[in-house]
Amino acid sequence: MTEHERVHLQARYEHELFEHVLPFWEMHSPDPVHGGYFNNLDRDGTVYDTTKHIWLLARQVWMFSKLYRLVEQRKSWRSLATSGMTFLRNHALRPDGRVYFALARDGQPIYQQRKIFTECFYALALSEHGRATDHPAQVEEAKLMVERIWDWAYDWSKVGRPALAGTAPSQMLAVPMMLLNLLEEVMIDANCSSEINDCFKRIQLHVHGSRVFESVAPDGNRLEGPDGRLMNPGHVIEAGWFLQQAAIRAERSDMIELARNMIRNAQAFGWDEEHGGLYYFMDAEGFSPVQLEWSMKLWWPHCEALYAHLLNYALTSNPDDLAAFRKVDDYTFRHFVDTEYGEWFGYCDREGRVTHRFKGGPYKGCFHVPRALWLCWQLLSNWPARDN
Amino acid sequence: MTEHERVHLQARYEHELFEHVLPFWEMHSPDPVHGGYFNNLDRDGTVYDTTKHIWLLARQVWMFSKLYRLVEQRKSWRSLATSGMTFLRNHALRPDGRVYFALARDGQPIYQQRKIFTECFYALALSEHGRATDHPAQVEEAKLMVERIWDWAYDWSKVGRPALAGTAPSQMLAVPMMLLNLLEEVMIDANCSSEINDCFKRIQLHVHGSRVFESVAPDGNRLEGPDGRLMNPGHVIEAGWFLQQAAIRAERSDMIELARNMIRNAQAFGWDEEHGGLYYFMDAEGFSPVQLEWSMKLWWPHCEALYAHLLNYALTSNPDDLAAFRKVDDYTFRHFVDTEYGEWFGYCDREGRVTHRFKGGPYKGCFHVPRALWLCWQLLSNWPARDN
Repeated sequence: MTEHERVHLQARYEHELFEHVLPFWEMHSPDPVHGGYFNNLDRDGTVYDTTKHIWLLARQVWMFSKLYRLVEQRKSWRSLATSGMTFLRNHALRPDGRVYFALARDGQPIYQQRKIFTECFYALALSEHGRATDHPAQVEEAKLMVERIWDWAYDWSKVGRPALAGTAPSQMLAVPMMLLNLLEEVMIDANCSSEINDCFKRIQLHVHGSRVFESVAPDGNRLEGPDGRLMNPGHVIEAGWFLQQAAIRAERSDMIELARNMIRNAQAFGWDEEHGGLYYFMDAEGFSPVQLEWSMKLWWPHCEALYAHLLNYALTSNPDDLAAFRKVDDYTFRHFVDTEYGEWFGYCDREGRVTHRFKGGPYKGCFHVPRALWLCWQLLSNWPARDN
Repeated sequence: MTEHERVHLQARYEHELFEHVLPFWEMHSPDPVHGGYFNNLDRDGTVYDTTKHIWLLARQVWMFSKLYRLVEQRKSWRSLATSGMTFLRNHALRPDGRVYFALARDGQPIYQQRKIFTECFYALALSEHGRATDHPAQVEEAKLMVERIWDWAYDWSKVGRPALAGTAPSQMLAVPMMLLNLLEEVMIDANCSSEINDCFKRIQLHVHGSRVFESVAPDGNRLEGPDGRLMNPGHVIEAGWFLQQAAIRAERSDMIELARNMIRNAQAFGWDEEHGGLYYFMDAEGFSPVQLEWSMKLWWPHCEALYAHLLNYALTSNPDDLAAFRKVDDYTFRHFVDTEYGEWFGYCDREGRVTHRFKGGPYKGCFHVPRALWLCWQLLSNWPARDN
């Protein structure tokens, strides 16, 4: 990458983040009556559903706290983050440490998942908000939550999901990947090397040569059926850069190499050569995935790929990584960016046509787009000097 | 419809049912080792997942029992039905009357839904199998199941789904529609006029002018948000012909009229004028539905529409109903039928391209296609004489 290209990219990502993406959420998401945010926003920011999905609220708290702490101490970012955190603490957290998945606008509970992810995002929000606003007690509380999540992580009967006799024991990639992210974010100043090594080992179980499976047996063996053949390229790419960052901090060259290859292989395997874009789901043996949306192109795998390829390139100077970045950048900015109203569309069909006009929904909020833009912009701004 | 067209249609539906659809399931679905059926069959019948989904197993028992009782006493149909029913009785039914949603090949339980539909399909299977094979005790047992389901139907906390404070009380169209089907199928020789009237009233709550909503408040008022705006044209059309048949038996001209209009309006509202086919989900106010697959064209709404329009036409001689039938018939036979391996594809994208090559999956089995073909063939074979 020439210096000219780097400077140009840096400016483009900065502009997109600060002029087109963050203002959308700052303007349209706050709930002036009950606090917290609306996350179900139509193309132009209109609230089309007042349900508050806690994955998204917690991630938005995390995002604005992060920006406040690391980019600029804007008061409006801090108060936005605190409004969300206060709403979450008052309404989403149950006395037993579980966190609701969805709340009504006024905070009354609507739905409780029998999974651990809402709790993970709550802990991320609490930790980052505590650091950003100088409330160490919040950081400590988040650490206790991570310890509790660690205890639940591989036995979901502890969060109410009965384990029935016919279900083959399995491990989902999402779990060690999420735990690693929690350790890196929440426990960064604690000594967690054995826990981090556990995540490394468990992620490795999913890697079978050039393919990474969403679910494997607890010993890493393949599972039968569609679940055992399921691949999610965006997920592998996201796990790849989580692992890359953690492996660098842990000085684990084997894991650095593994992470790099996970990203490169998922890009090669997951890219639709005919229409462009990363598939959402794939079956490793070429059967049709049972997920109806398997061939759709979603915004978030492309967000993850932007940063993952750029990070690979920054670390290796390998032109293939730059080419992968450019390919994803080109697809992403042609298909997902909405130059008229800001933020990005989330969902395209296989051919790249936008299928859903909303900017925020039950699984899309102020998170993947600003996180990827921020990470890329930060990396481009602190680009490693070359010896040439 | 000319006599020539009727004869031609009757032969085409008969041929499709008996030569292309039923043989696919007879050949590929039986599990010779553990009994019952595989329902996850690839395009050519290859088993790509041995998980047994009980909605599909129960519906296949129902279908072959029905054919044995009403079409032809083929021994192979009877033994196929009995093999499924035996597997269900041995493995799917819990001592407390709940029925598992999915079992492993050998019958060990995998998943239990916190809904009532698996129990409904089990009762349909048991009742029809009992009638077809002359086991009145099975029919009586099915009736007791229907009474239990009736008790659970509008309070899912009784099947393990906690009702949380922020959830607006609501009623789903699926429930009274399914109950009406159970009453018509299982309780046909009992006096259930008050229960049938209850279903009529509850279905009516979902009808707001020309639109029918999937979910409404218990008093029939509109609900806020995407759930309250959600429309599923195929579902309305299916509910329409259930209601049409029940209303005719109950001699309720108001409900006959209502059913007819539900079908006609859902066809008008749900048809994609640009690419053809019925949308899967729609938002009544024109927002993007949050379901990722909303614009896909699924086989089953088209199956339901074939019979619903043909029934309307048989009852009214209205040329608009014939035109609707022809439109759906043309789309269906051009997009879903697989002339090479039998059975139909289940899933097309908005433009009508097949997106999933399998014939059976977690929600597609030996049910909608043969039921629609059988109902249409039966109707065409007993076409009402006209006075002209």
